[in-house]
Amino acid sequence: MKKLNRSLLIFLSLFLMNSNSFAQNRPRELGIPFGILPTGSWNAITDVPGVKVGHFTKIEGESIRTGVTAILPHGGNLFQEKVPAAIFVGNGFGKLAGVTQVQELGNIESPIILTNTLSVAAGIEGAVRYSLERPGNENVGSVNAVVGETNDGFLNDIRGMHISPEEVIQTIKSAKSASVEEGNVGAGTGTICFGWKGGIGSSSRKLPESLGGYTVGVLVQTNFGGNLQIAGVPVGEKLGKYPFKDALEKADGSCMIVIATDAPVLERNLERMAQRAMMGLGKTGGIASNGSGDYVIAFSTAEGLRIPYSAKFGTKEEASFLRNDDMSSLFLAVIEATEEAVINSLFAAETMTGKEGRVIEALPKEQVLEWIKSNNP
Amino acid sequence: MKKLNRSLLIFLSLFLMNSNSFAQNRPRELGIPFGILPTGSWNAITDVPGVKVGHFTKIEGESIRTGVTAILPHGGNLFQEKVPAAIFVGNGFGKLAGVTQVQELGNIESPIILTNTLSVAAGIEGAVRYSLERPGNENVGSVNAVVGETNDGFLNDIRGMHISPEEVIQTIKSAKSASVEEGNVGAGTGTICFGWKGGIGSSSRKLPESLGGYTVGVLVQTNFGGNLQIAGVPVGEKLGKYPFKDALEKADGSCMIVIATDAPVLERNLERMAQRAMMGLGKTGGIASNGSGDYVIAFSTAEGLRIPYSAKFGTKEEASFLRNDDMSSLFLAVIEATEEAVINSLFAAETMTGKEGRVIEALPKEQVLEWIKSNNP
Amino acid sequence: MKKLNRSLLIFLSLFLMNSNSFAQNRPRELGIPFGILPTGSWNAITDVPGVKVGHFTKIEGESIRTGVTAILPHGGNLFQEKVPAAIFVGNGFGKLAGVTQVQELGNIESPIILTNTLSVAAGIEGAVRYSLERPGNENVGSVNAVVGETNDGFLNDIRGMHISPEEVIQTIKSAKSASVEEGNVGAGTGTICFGWKGGIGSSSRKLPESLGGYTVGVLVQTNFGGNLQIAGVPVGEKLGKYPFKDALEKADGSCMIVIATDAPVLERNLERMAQRAMMGLGKTGGIASNGSGDYVIAFSTAEGLRIPYSAKFGTKEEASFLRNDDMSSLFLAVIEATEEAVINSLFAAETMTGKEGRVIEALPKEQVLEWIKSNNP
Amino acid sequence: MKKLNRSLLIFLSLFLMNSNSFAQNRPRELGIPFGILPTGSWNAITDVPGVKVGHFTKIEGESIRTGVTAILPHGGNLFQEKVPAAIFVGNGFGKLAGVTQVQELGNIESPIILTNTLSVAAGIEGAVRYSLERPGNENVGSVNAVVGETNDGFLNDIRGMHISPEEVIQTIKSAKSASVEEGNVGAGTGTICFGWKGGIGSSSRKLPESLGGYTVGVLVQTNFGGNLQIAGVPVGEKLGKYPFKDALEKADGSCMIVIATDAPVLERNLERMAQRAMMGLGKTGGIASNGSGDYVIAFSTAEGLRIPYSAKFGTKEEASFLRNDDMSSLFLAVIEATEEAVINSLFAAETMTGKEGRVIEALPKEQVLEWIKSNNP
Repeated sequence: MKKLNRSLLIFLSLFLMNSNSFAQNRPRELGIPFGILPTGSWNAITDVPGVKVGHFTKIEGESIRTGVTAILPHGGNLFQEKVPAAIFVGNGFGKLAGVTQVQELGNIESPIILTNTLSVAAGIEGAVRYSLERPGNENVGSVNAVVGETNDGFLNDIRGMHISPEEVIQTIKSAKSASVEEGNVGAGTGTICFGWKGGIGSSSRKLPESLGGYTVGVLVQTNFGGNLQIAGVPVGEKLGKYPFKDALEKADGSCMIVIATDAPVLERNLERMAQRAMMGLGKTGGIASNGSGDYVIAFSTAEGLRIPYSAKFGTKEEASFLRNDDMSSLFLAVIEATEEAVINSLFAAETMTGKEGRVIEALPKEQVLEWIKSNNP
Repeated sequence: MKKLNRSLLIFLSLFLMNSNSFAQNRPRELGIPFGILPTGSWNAITDVPGVKVGHFTKIEGESIRTGVTAILPHGGNLFQEKVPAAIFVGNGFGKLAGVTQVQELGNIESPIILTNTLSVAAGIEGAVRYSLERPGNENVGSVNAVVGETNDGFLNDIRGMHISPEEVIQTIKSAKSASVEEGNVGAGTGTICFGWKGGIGSSSRKLPESLGGYTVGVLVQTNFGGNLQIAGVPVGEKLGKYPFKDALEKADGSCMIVIATDAPVLERNLERMAQRAMMGLGKTGGIASNGSGDYVIAFSTAEGLRIPYSAKFGTKEEASFLRNDDMSSLFLAVIEATEEAVINSLFAAETMTGKEGRVIEALPKEQVLEWIKSNNP
Repeated sequence: MKKLNRSLLIFLSLFLMNSNSFAQNRPRELGIPFGILPTGSWNAITDVPGVKVGHFTKIEGESIRTGVTAILPHGGNLFQEKVPAAIFVGNGFGKLAGVTQVQELGNIESPIILTNTLSVAAGIEGAVRYSLERPGNENVGSVNAVVGETNDGFLNDIRGMHISPEEVIQTIKSAKSASVEEGNVGAGTGTICFGWKGGIGSSSRKLPESLGGYTVGVLVQTNFGGNLQIAGVPVGEKLGKYPFKDALEKADGSCMIVIATDAPVLERNLERMAQRAMMGLGKTGGIASNGSGDYVIAFSTAEGLRIPYSAKFGTKEEASFLRNDDMSSLFLAVIEATEEAVINSLFAAETMTGKEGRVIEALPKEQVLEWIKSNNP
Repeated sequence: MKKLNRSLLIFLSLFLMNSNSFAQNRPRELGIPFGILPTGSWNAITDVPGVKVGHFTKIEGESIRTGVTAILPHGGNLFQEKVPAAIFVGNGFGKLAGVTQVQELGNIESPIILTNTLSVAAGIEGAVRYSLERPGNENVGSVNAVVGETNDGFLNDIRGMHISPEEVIQTIKSAKSASVEEGNVGAGTGTICFGWKGGIGSSSRKLPESLGGYTVGVLVQTNFGGNLQIAGVPVGEKLGKYPFKDALEKADGSCMIVIATDAPVLERNLERMAQRAMMGLGKTGGIASNGSGDYVIAFSTAEGLRIPYSAKFGTKEEASFLRNDDMSSLFLAVIEATEEAVINSLFAAETMTGKEGRVIEALPKEQVLEWIKSNNP
């Protein structure tokens, strides 16, 4: 019955593609399977209650193809109510700002900003100014901005440093709890993934009540290479696009991964969740090549775990949190949602022409779907 | 043509299985695809010149189902000629001995021993005694034994601590440069993987000359859980064995992974190679569950990188080693060989009855091959 | 007044030394200052309620000069009631067993064993057997033994591996909550520190109630080199024993440091405490030379933070623990107690003759005290 | 004889202070002892050949008290000729940018910038623009800026973010190989150390030829607290300024430490050197309090170890570098030079009035020298 549905879905999808409504269909809706756990209602990081996402897309003239994406762990004053957080470095060839303070103190105190490699300074300045200006933060003199990036310099005039701190602030302020726009938007505007147009992708998992009922949401900015595999189909090989095919071809690029959960998880176990995202990346065929900046940021929105900025000396944290023993289903959720978020970014991204007339094609979705269909009869 | 061969192979394999010679066939020979890079001649860690492997299998009475596997980076005096090495901790719920010295000094100075969780002490004592007794080491008073383990306590009377230091020494001495026996042997005698009988597996990749011509070999001791996937087929789901199917089922267990290469790679880049093995593990469906001790040990056998135990003060290391920029193809080799080694362990392992009459079935290979065949027509 | 007392104490001490009762006097009692925080009543790790220490000293014939020291976080079943814990690696040229599981899971589940470098296997086997045999652990099949070491091979026939698992078990069972014997006892029997006889040392700090009233206890096994400094007096230089004096002299050796506290501190902040111990070591003139295995193990005995081995799925940890903001006074306590524990070990250790008739002198305490007296008039 | 000189020096110093030329005298010249190794000719980080330092000091109106310090590993194109480098995090409550790439790739490719906490974005933008504009870098699209900070917000209007990228570029361009100005300059303009005016300090050590003849230089930006100790004199206690004296007093603040050496040391051993700097910090009485951002950046200028940005595939690094066994004297050099650099910063800094009329006094040097004199008769 399940399989019947899947075949039917793929058939319908292929049909619908011809009627030009493809762009609205996400891989799962097209029948591509991604593991065993159910998704949240938007199948996005925003399924974690309170999490907000904002995109600023900057496509101007022939050479500007870049943007900003902001992820807010909650809608309140993040500096005054920090959230438990961790960062795992999958491959550190990147410029992620704010890493050591998150690792030392176990929390995040500002919006998470994603942008291009040479706009990290703008990202920091934007996140800092936003925090300083926020009512209640009048006396704050130290803000740890968490700003990640991937390099969109193939399509974008990255050396032009076209993102301003004001645009970053605007992105933060535009963030909302809603379905997440994917593909060529925000920080994914100019990115490339497995040789095809990449971008922003998102997915989520909702554990059954018997496993706690928690939600795990993932958002990715895909700009990396490897040997693309979807639902077990070696798409990269079949399409003739894979690393080292031509000996000196590279698989470079980067992937920023952000994980949110409402599960009450402290920073050590958040780091373990973050580490699993690289296994999900591996399932898509990513290889974390030398030139890749692959980082995973994970935070918990559980209200009981908020860390107030100031408290009377001696005030203890009173927390109720998951034991090590109960983490494994959250690990699986991370792996599945990361894999799906990456593929989502590829299916949403459209062919883009950029700097110097360079073109990056969208993944040939019809062809890929046919292969997957024949594999899942 | 390639595909034709594959179908033919699968057909022949299914035929041969019925004629009872299945055990000699490895998944690749049965037509299961594992990436794009060619293997070495044995498709095993011993394809890296000089690397030796020894197994000691202890199956006694109704309850002893355990063993030891030793991996020697080279056949000389390892203490006097150490090799560059690194260890990556995929999930640290394990008892791997020797980690911090490898990480601090960047080298390994003894055989690598794998055994069961409660026999790590025997493993250390064996490796230490072996090193002390080795001619040339008469004045040595400090040996860093690297001893990994997985827990075979479901089939084996692990509390009986049935491995002795002498058996460890014997395993080391029996090691040879040859094809590697897989399945229910050595440290894999009593292990369980994805709910089926696991064991030892090995695989290798040989880069084309244009990429340096280096060999990467992997050996695994598989004892972990997750959602088994082979060549893209969701075998775990199809066979009804996957984590959290029944809400409280666990995916616990561990995986020891050893990587050898003759590429001239120093310890920092060996650690990066080690980290990629977890992406290969992810491709098989492993999730590095809470209870898993997942460790990756990587070393280089390149002769120019050997580290002599003693040298005149001021003697510098003169080394010629790979640049960061040239590492990516080695990363891909690690991912592919790790995935294949895990699946190899499952195909070689046979049904085993152990402690308290418990039975762990071998993976139903015929069924799996049929699915894979229909996916790769 | 304070200073008067100090001068008086030093005078009395010098007097008492001549009356041969010196050995019972610890540096603080002799007037040597160690910072600003008060000590606990025993000025030892056992001032942390519930912590037990046991020593096994093995001095036999002309060549055996070694031993075992066991530290128990509490007197109950450690496996069933684990304690939050962390390990910081100051310099990883050592064989400390159990590191990665402590770091991954954030807890310790067995007695902490200290011994000599080549007896780590005996230490593990002892700690494992002790745990398996403990009533209530009948079904346990995995124990993470934490076993540290330093190399006593100058005075001790270390290659003889003279410690047995039974002696380790005996040491554990002998542990008690009492003042801690220092100097040539237990794991410190054959160690050397700054060129003088080292050994076991211990110290503690008791924070004032305004800072929480917590106790921090430290125990050290001193076997390292450097440029000894006591209360600011450059003792090493004055006595002509310091590293590189003679160009090729080394400062090698190791230091195991164990920190206990009753402060409710989770593993991340325990790791931060552990890291500060190296600053205390620095104050004594230690340099963490290449050959040093310098490790710091920290745990909290706070009852509310115990981690039960088994719990129903979904049971959360309910914990009340210190905030980052309240950690600094505990950091200072660690630094002060580590410095004092090292100096205590030197003052308690006595001249020892060992293997091949080698002699390591005790620190010339009278001379040192005179210098310190003249510095603190 | 040595001691005679020292007493004489102290006497002369006290005399000279009265004749108002004190500011030109550094602690060592005043007779304060700092270990056993000799210094380089400037006793500064610039004793390492090729290293350049630039300061930009911004003192404007009543509230701007901040600045920038730039350290250049060599005078060439740093992006095209990277240097081996490592970063150790002593306490990660800080915003150091560029950490993960240095740790992953083992090199630094841009000037090291120090500034105030909220000007890290300006620091990054300045370092990036400088790198992009440098002749030869026309095709560069990714720069890893290493920007550290401490918080000068007590004396400086830090929320005003008064440092511009242009000022950062200007600082880089002004850098020179010369003696290093200390105290209230550059990034040390508004900092506070042990409750007294801190700032920039520098020191170096030159190993004897028998130990390789290498130079180690250290530069610090001191803005931290603790229990100040100079040449063994408990200055903090004697002056009544120490942490927790008044229970709720804090010792917060930060310390950036930069280490240069011409010794041929690869990144793993550079990290070990970096780690030792925290032991030198400990000797001054620093405690790495919770709120401290204590980071150590270490690099080697050895010409044979430069890493070219681009090289033909397959080009190996041919390097000649120090063995682990020969590192200990460099560790000692780091410890000694770090301690001295911190004290240098205190002796050079002068009383400063800043934001809201707040005053931070200079350390009362005359008093301190008298105490030290009486301790070193």
